[in-house]
Formats: sequence, structure tokens, C-alpha cells
Amino acid sequence: MNPRLFTFAGGNEGLWSVTRFQAVCGEPLPEVKRINILNGAQPASASEVTWQLRGVTSNERYATRAEKDQLVAKQVALGSRPEATRSAIIPIRKNAQWWGMTQDERRAILEERSHHIVIGMRYLPAIARRLHHCRDLGESEPFDFVTLFDYTPQDANAFEDMLAELRLTEEWKYIDRELDIRMVRE
Amino acid sequence: MNPRLFTFAGGNEGLWSVTRFQAVCGEPLPEVKRINILNGAQPASASEVTWQLRGVTSNERYATRAEKDQLVAKQVALGSRPEATRSAIIPIRKNAQWWGMTQDERRAILEERSHHIVIGMRYLPAIARRLHHCRDLGESEPFDFVTLFDYTPQDANAFEDMLAELRLTEEWKYIDRELDIRMVRE
Repeated sequence: MNPRLFTFAGGNEGLWSVTRFQAVCGEPLPEVKRINILNGAQPASASEVTWQLRGVTSNERYATRAEKDQLVAKQVALGSRPEATRSAIIPIRKNAQWWGMTQDERRAILEERSHHIVIGMRYLPAIARRLHHCRDLGESEPFDFVTLFDYTPQDANAFEDMLAELRLTEEWKYIDRELDIRMVRE
Repeated sequence: MNPRLFTFAGGNEGLWSVTRFQAVCGEPLPEVKRINILNGAQPASASEVTWQLRGVTSNERYATRAEKDQLVAKQVALGSRPEATRSAIIPIRKNAQWWGMTQDERRAILEERSHHIVIGMRYLPAIARRLHHCRDLGESEPFDFVTLFDYTPQDANAFEDMLAELRLTEEWKYIDRELDIRMVRE
């Protein structure tokens, strides 16, 4: 098993209770009550799983050293704060036009024109984030990325603001499937 | 199944007959007589498989639009020339220092200082190449990349020259496991 693999299993079990389940664009997934987030694969014996998403954490694709150093100085690890009882899972898929672009073209859209890294940085350390890559797994996955966030109830409005900013960017025009799942820890 | 997944199955069967099997650095794999290269996964029923390597073709990680346009103008598709009866599989793994670098740092080493793209371009269209990514598969893989090449017997010396050039670069200092497998089509 790849130690960087994570599984998001939707069903009737799991630490996280779903409070909102919305298909932002593209095909939805069946709504579930609870989500289990596991490091590794879902055990084959697991019952009550309606769907599962999988992804691996990986190396930086776009951040420069200067950006990365700023991120590391400000961020906290996802899952490290007992008071961060709110969470969101945002699975997205990008279209063929995005994936047909070269590295410089994608970087120009993602950061120079959409300020994805800068926007995320403004919400640190309140909004913790972990990005999982799905596109290069051996199985066909329904999304290219699953991003997991956690934050305190006090920072819930800040999270809404951040998402709203990102969704207005040029980068988001290349997203053809997106879910928005909100959860509380129970 | 991810349609970009390829499997390299080493054993006693397959279109390709192994003529050289060398561990350049790091741990070797057991030497095999033949290799089967499949789009998709190895069938569970396949016998005579000593090992298998898997990888997915993916989007460009380093090439700029200008570089990509030059590559596309010169290259031929791997597997498209009946006369290209020689082949090589070069699996490599890069060390933790490489993967801890940011995109700009890795690009600077790979191209500005090691000229990886420029070197490969000089050998087009003679040496055809297909890169497979293994590091972000769900299973732990022994290598990060598997590159497959094909060329005619007349271009075999050119292939040696290209490999020798690449192995002298700064980029190659970050490679801690490498195999060199040569084959002929039978």
C-alpha cells in the first residue's frame, strides 16, 4: 500500500457527520450520512459504504520555493487541532483542455491569473488543507483531486469566503465536476 | 481501470525478448527472459510472471509550451514503426531530496541545468519515448517512473549516446535506483 494513500468512504459510518452534500457542477454522488477518512485503503470487509474516493498526497506541482516557505511558516497540519470540529471535502475534476496544457500554461492560470496559492495563504492558519491526487491512480477515479479542510466553528465564515473567491477564478472555469461536502466531527 | 495504465510483466512470456538486464544503481529485480507490455493491468490468470511494473501516462510536468510544440513537431509515437525492433525499459526512482523540492527547483535542475528535454529532443525522431508515472499509484511501487523507448537497430548507438549524456547530468544525482533493460521484438 502506498503510505500516502487516503480513502474517503461515504455511508452510514465514520467519525464525520455530513451537514451539507451538494453537487456544485457535473454528475453528483449519492448523498450519505457519514464519512470515514482513512489512511490507506478501505478494508474489504467494510459494510455500509455507499461510495469511496481515493487519493494520494504528493509532491508540489505549482508552488515555488518562496511560496512554499511562506505556506510552511503559516500553516498547521490538518487534523492537529481538537477545536477544528468542522470539515469540508471538495472533490474536483478538471477538463481535457486543462490537462492538455503545459506546465507553464497551467501555472500561469493557477497562480499568476487566479492567485490560488495566495488566496489559500490569506486564510492560514485558520483553514487547514490537505490535497489528494486521484488522476494517476491505477483505477479510473471520478475526480482528479480531493481536498480536505478543517477549521473551527468560528472560522466557518472565513471558509465560505475563501471558497467563493476561488470559485470566481479563471482556474475554476476548467473544473467540470465538483462536489461540496460539509461535515462536523462527532 | 485507468485507460492510461500500462503494465510491464517480466517472466517467460511476451513479445519482447530481453538481451540485457542490468541494475545501474540500487536494488536489482530478478532477471527475466521476456517482457510483456500491456495497456491495462496484467490479467490475474497470467502465469510465468516474475515481477510486474505499472505506471500511467500523464500530463506534462516540466515542458513549456514552446518545448512541447518542438517535441510534438519532431517525435513519432512509440510502437508506430515496424522497423523499430529494439526497445529499452529504464525504471528509475528519485530520492527524498528530489521530491522535497518545489516545482521551480526541480525544473531548474531538470532542464536549465541538466537539459533533459533538449537532450531528448536532439535524438528525435529516431528514439521514441513514452513516460509512465508510478509514484502516485495506490500501491507502493519500486520505481517512480518507467520510461519505454523504441528505435531501429541502426539507431542503437544513438540510444547509447543519449543515455550516457543523461546519466552525466545533475538530475541523475537524485536517482537512487535504476534498471536498464534492453529488448528485441520477436
